Amino acid sequence: MMNYPLLLTTFLQRAARFFPKKEIVSVYANGTFRYDYGQAYKRCCQLAHALESLGIKHGDRVASFSLNNHRHFELYFGVPGMGAVLHTLNVRLSPEHLVYIMNHAGDRVMFIDEDLWFMVDPVKDQLKTVEHFVIMSQSGTMPPTTLSPVVLYDDLIKKFPEDYPFSPDRDENEAALICYTSATTGDPKGVVYSHRALYLHSLVVGLTLGAMERDCLLHVVPMFHANAWGAPFLGAALGCKQVLPGRQILDMKALCKIISDEKATFTCGVPTIWMMLYKYLEEGGEHDFSSIRTVVSGGSAMPRHLMESFRDKYGFNIAQCYGMTETTPFVSAAIPKSYMDNWPDKELFDLKTTVGIIATGLELRLENIETGDEAKMDGKDMGEICLRGPWIASEYYKDPERSKSTFRDGWLHTGDIATMNEEGYMSLVDRTKDLIKSGGEWISSVDLENAIMAHPMVLEAAVIGMPDEKWQERPLACVVPSPGRENEISAESVKSFLQDKIAKWWIPDEFVFLKEIPKTSVGKFNKKELRKTVLPTLKK
Amino acid sequence: MMNYPLLLTTFLQRAARFFPKKEIVSVYANGTFRYDYGQAYKRCCQLAHALESLGIKHGDRVASFSLNNHRHFELYFGVPGMGAVLHTLNVRLSPEHLVYIMNHAGDRVMFIDEDLWFMVDPVKDQLKTVEHFVIMSQSGTMPPTTLSPVVLYDDLIKKFPEDYPFSPDRDENEAALICYTSATTGDPKGVVYSHRALYLHSLVVGLTLGAMERDCLLHVVPMFHANAWGAPFLGAALGCKQVLPGRQILDMKALCKIISDEKATFTCGVPTIWMMLYKYLEEGGEHDFSSIRTVVSGGSAMPRHLMESFRDKYGFNIAQCYGMTETTPFVSAAIPKSYMDNWPDKELFDLKTTVGIIATGLELRLENIETGDEAKMDGKDMGEICLRGPWIASEYYKDPERSKSTFRDGWLHTGDIATMNEEGYMSLVDRTKDLIKSGGEWISSVDLENAIMAHPMVLEAAVIGMPDEKWQERPLACVVPSPGRENEISAESVKSFLQDKIAKWWIPDEFVFLKEIPKTSVGKFNKKELRKTVLPTLKK
Repeated sequence: MMNYPLLLTTFLQRAARFFPKKEIVSVYANGTFRYDYGQAYKRCCQLAHALESLGIKHGDRVASFSLNNHRHFELYFGVPGMGAVLHTLNVRLSPEHLVYIMNHAGDRVMFIDEDLWFMVDPVKDQLKTVEHFVIMSQSGTMPPTTLSPVVLYDDLIKKFPEDYPFSPDRDENEAALICYTSATTGDPKGVVYSHRALYLHSLVVGLTLGAMERDCLLHVVPMFHANAWGAPFLGAALGCKQVLPGRQILDMKALCKIISDEKATFTCGVPTIWMMLYKYLEEGGEHDFSSIRTVVSGGSAMPRHLMESFRDKYGFNIAQCYGMTETTPFVSAAIPKSYMDNWPDKELFDLKTTVGIIATGLELRLENIETGDEAKMDGKDMGEICLRGPWIASEYYKDPERSKSTFRDGWLHTGDIATMNEEGYMSLVDRTKDLIKSGGEWISSVDLENAIMAHPMVLEAAVIGMPDEKWQERPLACVVPSPGRENEISAESVKSFLQDKIAKWWIPDEFVFLKEIPKTSVGKFNKKELRKTVLPTLKK
Repeated sequence: MMNYPLLLTTFLQRAARFFPKKEIVSVYANGTFRYDYGQAYKRCCQLAHALESLGIKHGDRVASFSLNNHRHFELYFGVPGMGAVLHTLNVRLSPEHLVYIMNHAGDRVMFIDEDLWFMVDPVKDQLKTVEHFVIMSQSGTMPPTTLSPVVLYDDLIKKFPEDYPFSPDRDENEAALICYTSATTGDPKGVVYSHRALYLHSLVVGLTLGAMERDCLLHVVPMFHANAWGAPFLGAALGCKQVLPGRQILDMKALCKIISDEKATFTCGVPTIWMMLYKYLEEGGEHDFSSIRTVVSGGSAMPRHLMESFRDKYGFNIAQCYGMTETTPFVSAAIPKSYMDNWPDKELFDLKTTVGIIATGLELRLENIETGDEAKMDGKDMGEICLRGPWIASEYYKDPERSKSTFRDGWLHTGDIATMNEEGYMSLVDRTKDLIKSGGEWISSVDLENAIMAHPMVLEAAVIGMPDEKWQERPLACVVPSPGRENEISAESVKSFLQDKIAKWWIPDEFVFLKEIPKTSVGKFNKKELRKTVLPTLKK
């Protein structure tokens, strides 16, 4: 067989040649821009030449600070196409983290949306490696930025030929994109994606979720979030219409209008968006979901009642998926098997609210964190999700120290603790570092938190382990009472509420009532902070 | 990203672990055998051990002489799984060719269906490399064969463990299967398929044809024909139910019963089968196609009127595909694009009767055989289909001489001449060697034959080039009159029939009336033979 590499350019070239009329739609605040694969390809070629003219070479990093729009789409193909590495920057990063990762990645050029320059201006002097700033402007005017040297994207590329010799004489293992993931401790960690990984990931995402040429992909998940879950590449591989909604992803009225106007069939997003959408619908918001076929949710758990109501009231059938920056990101999807068609709805939803079955091509070990043995597929035995496969990272970029603890013995140790039922569907129960070991047995802090939060007087609850001489650890519940119930709630009332809901030995001995639970930058409970502030107050 | 190889074993291991209850059904003359991925996996493991016990090592060739049944399915995974190469033998080969290719491949073990031993016995002494014969018996009894040493498949494997350490520490470019293609001149030529090629091919076939876990794959195409078009691997990748119909593929009543009993949704086969099926249906044959979703036809052209009638009368919607042994085999599929939904039926059928658009991942050049330039996408300009991509062969096995002429400049030169319309759909017009060059212009012998065969008094017609001093070549029509019309038909009547149907200069000057057209072993016009026998009779 030919030694022919798996390159992302192959997808775009085929789309440009055989599906040149299929649309790529980019929605801006002041209007919708439409073009097609034929035109997009030409601009990707111009971009590739332009990058060369800036001195960009194989393996150089090129940063994007951008939402979902057609120029960002061109960067997705043009940058890796000419051999450079696209570094997608999360526009919500703190200035410190932004500076850190750009310097760490060594970004040589930075592409910035015209309405985001003001976030870059204040830190520009700290960006040690950036030689050129490029403003991606739909209005065609240069904003009042102090960045320098700076040029408008369209001005930069317009003078170059509309064809570029994308060559298949390249190594598929070359880097195509890089993305940093926020760490709970220390600086963000970089994950480098190869052409090969993204290529294979595209095919498997498409096959698993049943994508096809007639799908219209609406990219709700930001393009700076783990390669937009691979959807732009999948769309090009199939010749799908693609819709880039820009800032409209946070405006539910606009988002619903895009869905119905463009007849979107396939969309991916985080639960936050779907919850906002649900709220909008419940308030009577206008919508037409008749075109929608596939809705993917991932990044964190989607509440069950919401998934049920979404489907029952609005015909919005959500497929929950699991993944992370280190996994390109797709790992698993909670799609019921065909022989379950006649299962009772309740049992089907038990499966749909798991994180699903691992994708074809990947290998899973659910590893007991003490013995290293594989957990049983009984829905109870817990283990850490360990993965290997062609689109699983093998290291963090230039970070051997932290790579060592996460990538061990050839496996990615995700830090996620899960159970797996006998049908192979995984449910996340905790993060490794948050599990509580009591009397030789594990307690899932997440399960315990959910049980406590079901108490009517509890707004939020976080559970951490506290050292215990006899049991090694015991759970400590940090509880935020519901507004106005601060004086009614007591440790005893919560304990008695839990009596028949969880194993007796899971019930916390200690309760601490707080005004709020400290959160991380991405809104998760900051248990490290809790341990630091709450535990010392308990020392006897 | 991890350096994780693309191995076929990955598919089966996942299916065995997460879809162990999904069925594999094998239909025998005397009854249907059912088991599942869980059980099949265990037997594949036993087989792998058994091959080791026979001394089979990495890269050794293991032959199968078998129709579509569950033991052949186990060979598909067990042989490449343990590192050997499965050589699928066409059971319709002439004894000479069978002996040639087995000796050429150096097959060390030969697995034979229990009702096919009698075809091997007569040539056994000529098989220079075979050390073991294994009879795949469903009845459990050894047939009266003189092959030696010989053992029953189930006896061979039963004593071995049901688990095998299939390792991912292997090179994905290792050979997995080998298949020989009959050449019009000389000995058959071998094509070696790597794990990587078959793996990628599976994903792309599935994505292109929209296969999913809920599909039930009915393997009508023989498993000795170009990897059964990859469908057994695709099925394992997705966890699909698979049905192996054995000899029933030639018994239309039995085939229809299998389709309805097993609720087959997806099937692949050559036009010969679909024509037999159509005849059976037209005679009022019992059938229920309500489960059928995807029918693939390939290998040769499906007549348009048959495709239309199939759909209109029986709801059997055929997707015509193109490929060959050298391409694993999938190259292209004639699936209309979504924006053509409202096209008139006639125009849609114009596309459905092409060989379609090239699959994602492959690269095509439609190459003018004189200038080497790319043909225009205008539906008229002709060129040779030249391909490259990860599942395109780069050579014939141990045949440098013939490899050189077919694999040139990094491209497979298919020898198929096609046009491509502006939507990218290709139509085959001829084989390179059958094109006729007249006055500096090309004449498609196939198009000309079709025009002549539309004449009511013509049963068959083959057109070959005859040397011409003035025009270099002129077409010569070899015509078989319809039964009973031998005395009515004349060259003049055919010429005048062609007047308004083709370009004037295409009309043959010479006509030869024959009793029959000589055919090759696969039923195609043997033009080499025609040139040899007919041309000398014309010499003036």
